[in-house]
Amino acid sequence: MSSSTAAGQERKAPGRPRNAQADETILDAVLGLLSDGQSAAAISIEAVAAKAGVGKATIYRRWPNKDALLIDAVRSMKGPLPEPAGVSVRDDLIALIKANRTPRAQRYSKVTACLLPDLHRDTELARMYHAFVEPRREVTRQVLRRGIETGELRADLDVELTQLMLSAPGMMQSMLRLTSVPEDQFAEKLVDAVLRGAAAR
Amino acid sequence: MSSSTAAGQERKAPGRPRNAQADETILDAVLGLLSDGQSAAAISIEAVAAKAGVGKATIYRRWPNKDALLIDAVRSMKGPLPEPAGVSVRDDLIALIKANRTPRAQRYSKVTACLLPDLHRDTELARMYHAFVEPRREVTRQVLRRGIETGELRADLDVELTQLMLSAPGMMQSMLRLTSVPEDQFAEKLVDAVLRGAAAR
Repeated sequence: MSSSTAAGQERKAPGRPRNAQADETILDAVLGLLSDGQSAAAISIEAVAAKAGVGKATIYRRWPNKDALLIDAVRSMKGPLPEPAGVSVRDDLIALIKANRTPRAQRYSKVTACLLPDLHRDTELARMYHAFVEPRREVTRQVLRRGIETGELRADLDVELTQLMLSAPGMMQSMLRLTSVPEDQFAEKLVDAVLRGAAAR
Repeated sequence: MSSSTAAGQERKAPGRPRNAQADETILDAVLGLLSDGQSAAAISIEAVAAKAGVGKATIYRRWPNKDALLIDAVRSMKGPLPEPAGVSVRDDLIALIKANRTPRAQRYSKVTACLLPDLHRDTELARMYHAFVEPRREVTRQVLRRGIETGELRADLDVELTQLMLSAPGMMQSMLRLTSVPEDQFAEKLVDAVLRGAAAR
């Protein structure tokens, strides 16, 4: 057991034991507990160790504390940053939203839902969460800014608000377990509704 | 202590002790615990009783179980159903969204966020939650249907999707503690964005 690593404030990415399989087993145990509806506050390192079939020391060798482990688990579900094709704004936005409607992404929404009480309780966890989500929001913003430049989108578009209008409905549908808008063509319908507007012409 | 009431499956509204003050104190204790970031699963009747300064029997005399108490607490925050003025669709939608941006409504969002793990874990709680929220969604749907009839909104409008587009951004902003879209004029800006659309003309 490496007590110096366990006591460190930061996870030592370059120097940590290279055992991707064990990492994955541990992260999957965290996600399993969160998917079962346990709040982050209720999850203990002991419970994660038991579910993953490893010792607590194995976990502390990799992550300095529970918050770091939770954020890594959430990060592991999202995969790499999406890369828009850059042809039309409509197609890029549909692709970005579709990437959030996969079963894997649905599981992510559920896990995020189960983390929310802790995001309200724990400022440091909230900070880490936003630091992780922010680059993903930026991908959507870049597509929107490009659309303003190419003239596909209105020049006075509120990029932040539009970003929220594109991400919130799907997230809320998953989090609140709503079924009023069918998953079939969800992305196309939302993007077209945001682009065209609800007002009669 | 009325053991017959405590053992009942439903809260006996007409016959329950008429002590609105005690009801309010108990409901406020529940909301206080949820606002502190406790998940519903972590909240016990004992903890509610202690925070409210009443005995457990006083709570069980009014609510058959914790789920019924939780839903009543959430309901107590929302107040009466909003009544749109019925002049213009734009004004009605702005008023409905503004009603969800008050400090009281923000507290509601935070409490809902803290209930989410339990909505994923507990089907009965999810059923009660949706039964409570559904009439509020219906108010927005009615405004949208009226707008289609008056010609203010496009004839082919997807009412369910638009309902979600109007409610999700504010809820997500509160739940995830986002600050990217300022609260100032949030309702006006969102409604105008939904009505006008993002595409250039």
